[in-house]
Amino acid sequence: MSLPATYAATGVFVCFEGGEGGGKSTQARLLAQWLEVQGRRVLLTFEPGDTPVGQELRRIVLSPETGSLSPRTEALLYAADKAEHVDTVVAPALERGDVVVMDRYVDSTLAYQGAGRALAVAEVEHVARWATHGLRPHLTVLLDLDPAIGHARFEGRDRIEGEPLEFFVRVRQLFLDLAAADPEHYLVLDAARPVDDLAAEVRARVEALL
Amino acid sequence: MSLPATYAATGVFVCFEGGEGGGKSTQARLLAQWLEVQGRRVLLTFEPGDTPVGQELRRIVLSPETGSLSPRTEALLYAADKAEHVDTVVAPALERGDVVVMDRYVDSTLAYQGAGRALAVAEVEHVARWATHGLRPHLTVLLDLDPAIGHARFEGRDRIEGEPLEFFVRVRQLFLDLAAADPEHYLVLDAARPVDDLAAEVRARVEALL
Repeated sequence: MSLPATYAATGVFVCFEGGEGGGKSTQARLLAQWLEVQGRRVLLTFEPGDTPVGQELRRIVLSPETGSLSPRTEALLYAADKAEHVDTVVAPALERGDVVVMDRYVDSTLAYQGAGRALAVAEVEHVARWATHGLRPHLTVLLDLDPAIGHARFEGRDRIEGEPLEFFVRVRQLFLDLAAADPEHYLVLDAARPVDDLAAEVRARVEALL
Repeated sequence: MSLPATYAATGVFVCFEGGEGGGKSTQARLLAQWLEVQGRRVLLTFEPGDTPVGQELRRIVLSPETGSLSPRTEALLYAADKAEHVDTVVAPALERGDVVVMDRYVDSTLAYQGAGRALAVAEVEHVARWATHGLRPHLTVLLDLDPAIGHARFEGRDRIEGEPLEFFVRVRQLFLDLAAADPEHYLVLDAARPVDDLAAEVRARVEALL
């Protein structure tokens, strides 16, 4: 029951991935604004938490009040958020022909719940792909950053960000490995570069997909 | 990555399964009381909801206020509840050598989220087995009941119980199919029989496991 990679036949699906402090949400917003100026219908969204049940799951997985969770519990809660998000938000937008611009997706689950929590990445991927019907982005922009920088900036803000630096070193490496394995669908950028330079590179790559 | 069936080497794991109105929680309680009289340490527990995060997940999946959920979302939330329950409650009790008596487990997920919601049962099973490390009960007692009876008694009480009768007919059949496929680990009882007769049959079968 392995799932083939699926790319939407209509619409364009672009995700931003990477560790904290790399400017994912800023770049997602800049791309969405530029796309709207080009006259495209855009859905700007994020994971976890951009559905009604997702908001509750986001609170559970990120709130320090939750305390420790079994690693599989956490992976399954992220997968549940994705299942609801893809079925009720992302897939309908792509079917309408919209451009979906998303802040975090399956790669984040593989990096944080797989490599970070030291679950088998293949098992976490299986669950996440089932949750999302194998739907993959046409392009994933990886905003790569030395985790010592991102970590210092955000340390302890929520349940995940309270992890030690080694956790984030594993997370970064997995993001880089995913990108290296599929260069056709990835753009890796040094997140330490100026925001406008990064935005221009993203636009150039997305323009080729429109 | 299919998971082999795992039976705990210490402790005894007994589950009660079946539709609503069949007396699962009554029989679980009676068995636990009898085991305690025999001098056994017993953990009486249930799914979903018998961990702190499980309580929140139970509210989400059962509250009518949640409204509709994608079938995969629902299956993943039940799996998350199971992952936390097995890792933090069930497995530690079995490791201590306790008898774990449980009201609903993986079979309920296969029946309600698989057969009931018309997801592929094999896919729901894969996720549920991953969540629970493949851990299976030494004995599952199926309290079988015509769903027209159980349904009439409980109709509309929560999100799941508001489903139409056909849903519960599929659920019952899947419970029966699981039992028929593995008679060594199942005891199927007609839940319409007197409570004390059922309890005596359960005790006789469990006694052989102690």
